Amino acid sequence: MGRNDDDDIIEQHTEEEMEKKDKRSRTASSSSLLGSVTPSGTEAHSGTQSSHRLLAYSDALISIIATVMILPVAHTKMQDDEELRESVQLLLTTKIAVYLMTFLIVTVAWAAHIRLFQVIVRIDDCLALLNLACMMLITFLPYTFSLMANFPENILGILLFCGCVMVIGIIQSVIVLYAFGHPFLLNEQIQVAENQTFYKHHILKVIMRVPLICFFASIFSFIFFQLSYVLLAIVIFLPYISQCLKWCRSKAIGPVAESPDSVMFYTYLPNEPLSKDRVEAFSDGVYAIVATLLILDICEDNSPDPTTVHKKFGGSLIAALQVYGPEYLAYFGSFVTVGLLWFVHHSLFLHVTKATRFMGLLNTFSLAFVGGLPLAYELTHEFPPNSHNELEAIQISCVIIFFAGIFQLAIWVVALYNEQETLHPYVRYGGCEHIFMLAKLSLYPCIALGTFIVTLILSKFSAPIFHLMEITVPFAFLVLRLLVRVGLALLRLIFCPHRPDPRALVEEEEDDAGVPFSALDT
Amino acid sequence: MGRNDDDDIIEQHTEEEMEKKDKRSRTASSSSLLGSVTPSGTEAHSGTQSSHRLLAYSDALISIIATVMILPVAHTKMQDDEELRESVQLLLTTKIAVYLMTFLIVTVAWAAHIRLFQVIVRIDDCLALLNLACMMLITFLPYTFSLMANFPENILGILLFCGCVMVIGIIQSVIVLYAFGHPFLLNEQIQVAENQTFYKHHILKVIMRVPLICFFASIFSFIFFQLSYVLLAIVIFLPYISQCLKWCRSKAIGPVAESPDSVMFYTYLPNEPLSKDRVEAFSDGVYAIVATLLILDICEDNSPDPTTVHKKFGGSLIAALQVYGPEYLAYFGSFVTVGLLWFVHHSLFLHVTKATRFMGLLNTFSLAFVGGLPLAYELTHEFPPNSHNELEAIQISCVIIFFAGIFQLAIWVVALYNEQETLHPYVRYGGCEHIFMLAKLSLYPCIALGTFIVTLILSKFSAPIFHLMEITVPFAFLVLRLLVRVGLALLRLIFCPHRPDPRALVEEEEDDAGVPFSALDT
Repeated sequence: MGRNDDDDIIEQHTEEEMEKKDKRSRTASSSSLLGSVTPSGTEAHSGTQSSHRLLAYSDALISIIATVMILPVAHTKMQDDEELRESVQLLLTTKIAVYLMTFLIVTVAWAAHIRLFQVIVRIDDCLALLNLACMMLITFLPYTFSLMANFPENILGILLFCGCVMVIGIIQSVIVLYAFGHPFLLNEQIQVAENQTFYKHHILKVIMRVPLICFFASIFSFIFFQLSYVLLAIVIFLPYISQCLKWCRSKAIGPVAESPDSVMFYTYLPNEPLSKDRVEAFSDGVYAIVATLLILDICEDNSPDPTTVHKKFGGSLIAALQVYGPEYLAYFGSFVTVGLLWFVHHSLFLHVTKATRFMGLLNTFSLAFVGGLPLAYELTHEFPPNSHNELEAIQISCVIIFFAGIFQLAIWVVALYNEQETLHPYVRYGGCEHIFMLAKLSLYPCIALGTFIVTLILSKFSAPIFHLMEITVPFAFLVLRLLVRVGLALLRLIFCPHRPDPRALVEEEEDDAGVPFSALDT
Repeated sequence: MGRNDDDDIIEQHTEEEMEKKDKRSRTASSSSLLGSVTPSGTEAHSGTQSSHRLLAYSDALISIIATVMILPVAHTKMQDDEELRESVQLLLTTKIAVYLMTFLIVTVAWAAHIRLFQVIVRIDDCLALLNLACMMLITFLPYTFSLMANFPENILGILLFCGCVMVIGIIQSVIVLYAFGHPFLLNEQIQVAENQTFYKHHILKVIMRVPLICFFASIFSFIFFQLSYVLLAIVIFLPYISQCLKWCRSKAIGPVAESPDSVMFYTYLPNEPLSKDRVEAFSDGVYAIVATLLILDICEDNSPDPTTVHKKFGGSLIAALQVYGPEYLAYFGSFVTVGLLWFVHHSLFLHVTKATRFMGLLNTFSLAFVGGLPLAYELTHEFPPNSHNELEAIQISCVIIFFAGIFQLAIWVVALYNEQETLHPYVRYGGCEHIFMLAKLSLYPCIALGTFIVTLILSKFSAPIFHLMEITVPFAFLVLRLLVRVGLALLRLIFCPHRPDPRALVEEEEDDAGVPFSALDT
């Protein structure tokens, strides 16, 4: 009896399995029709998963790690009696260098990660775990870097760094080998390619280049450690420099007909741009962590102690909090600045369809300066009002904001250069959106430049005024929108007064834009 | 001549505009066919934008803010001579309470944000700026909370908190009014609904409830401040308690036939679940920030000073770093734990199609404990080896990990209860994936419980062993997968030996799963 029942159970089980398979294919086809609101949803079966969320998590981790090293910079104790310029030069140079180096090297690791997961588009449990191991080692890189900066003549920092990079390289190679062993994890272009082995070897070669250089660097460190630094510098800067040169050359003497081999040497797939989604996710991470590093400081340091309040201020909490007044203002000012820089970035990437390597590079530079904003925040509220130091702190803030903004503008300019490839058709033609985008992008550089000049002239300019100015900028955005509209309308009115009311035209256009998108679809 | 040229220009401009419109609709239709790899791409025109990236950024900000208050807890200085239990009770209770309260209240704000942007599905510049203002105030909430905790008898904390909440309420109302003024921003269900005004009033009513309670709380604070706390507690806990009660009741006496009005009172749209994407994004943010808070500590505090190294260790960097050995081990151990908890969460939500409110609540609890992991990390490496304190620190870590894991398991159990609604068809039927999921989910609670018991018996158990154990868990995952497979195969072999080799069956199934997904599509 037991045997029979069991047989029934198994029978039923296989039946269910058949049903499952049916359902699976049905879900697959129906969900591909329904659109991909949940991209991870449809592929959740049998251990094969969409890599969407894994990549988002990796982006979040990497972006936080990239910006973490600004904390030691921002928390450097300033002495009031020292001149800021001197103290900056003496104390901060190393730390800022560490921060920038970390940012660049983490971005290089991130770019490598993007390329890897443009080849591998589905994951399973094993890949997810391997990727987490990879992430763990990447998060350790900033620490090895700070060791190198603090003890430049000690080879331990170099060895640790090279060790990490080599292990990361090995893990990534294992990932590639694993993925090629399970070809359904690969991207379709490679899946259908006949020369898979060629691809595999090529990708492995590209991946192992950096660990190999690090291997030599670690060997040289025992003999002549200066050479190791040169090798490491090559690792960090080579992709950037080669990209820059390539772009400049192509702009100067026109696009060079590259042999397919030389292209293959730099990318896995010829001319592939960076995944726009991942550039956005990484940027979001940086902006989010920078915005919250500020409140993190406030929550930790600026909450008054009950006993101090009782002793110093006679129990008056308001009096105790007034001491921290400048901090709050600085916080709100910085948050607004970070938020609006994010907003500009957001608007910019709405018009972008593809991010080329060079745009990615400019984006990295912009983000590196955004990551410097916590330093600006620390500096501007640390010095007594109306001191020389305060003015210089404001100037440093202006420089940071200026460069963060100007690199965003540069992304737009580069995108316009090859607009066929990178921009939405809607913005290519100029017009309202186009001009407004330009206005948006130039707002922060202009304000920063203006403020910088004002600080040179007006010695009365103070940090509170600066922060209040920062807080009022959002209204400038709204005013800007209005101004661009009115300006365009006026232009039309002047050059073509016999046409129907341009304001009505603008509004009509707006109404048109107001049609829900679904209506345009049909 | 100038006039003619200008006319030509305008003519050309309008022609281009026509072309643009054509292109726009063409792009729209083609891109909707191509799928939505870039969901923000298609709607980038005329200032109307998909809200996708704005929401991702908001999620990132909110998740970081939710976990920020663990830092004051983790950085509480422990005295070696004190007993940990006492010091925990005395020093940490307030801070932990602040952390938990902050986490809950930020999650409430986040849930409100989700609901709001399930109604408003497209944004424009104005909404983006309003949303950023909203975020700025939300990031300030933890600070007001820490004021309340430190000065419970001072009404300033309450007033600041209520002020923030009221301003957030006003901003959200403005967002709603603005969106209903531009109906193309709304979700389609409401766009086509006839009673838009009814919806508007209903949503405004729901949004203004909390600010209204806060308004009364701030008034009462002048008269009888204890009452204000009661009101605030109602604000925080009411949604949770009502959810719990509703769920328990529905499980105990079956689903109640709810009148549409009572449903409307809790949600904007009847029975809408939380957006799975946003639950994932928020969880990713918490896991990412927790994982990196650890390295942030290491980078700031554990980088030795060149002068100390020279004086204390005779210039030997390795000797100097050996002092920090336990920190590194603790870091890697904690990172692995956070990473794997994320991994389990990731696997879990691959099988989930919809997150009900109750599942969202359980997820919040799980995340609150995950956010406590930096505390565990600080505790386990702070005490001298083999002390009583060290054992208790390990026990606290076990408790935190246990609850983080058990709430994840609870999400799965709840999902199974209404599997028709919440789970993929593939996992509903039991089978390999199903069992493996259960095994994955129960791994961490089991390990934590086991370790806890071991610490009670073995007094030799130390933090390094604990961290090494944490690092080896990933291999347990892989072993687990193997065990489940072998177990299932054995079961089949025992109950049905005359069938074809079950191993081959399993492999066949695997091969089947290995077919690229696109093949299943066709």
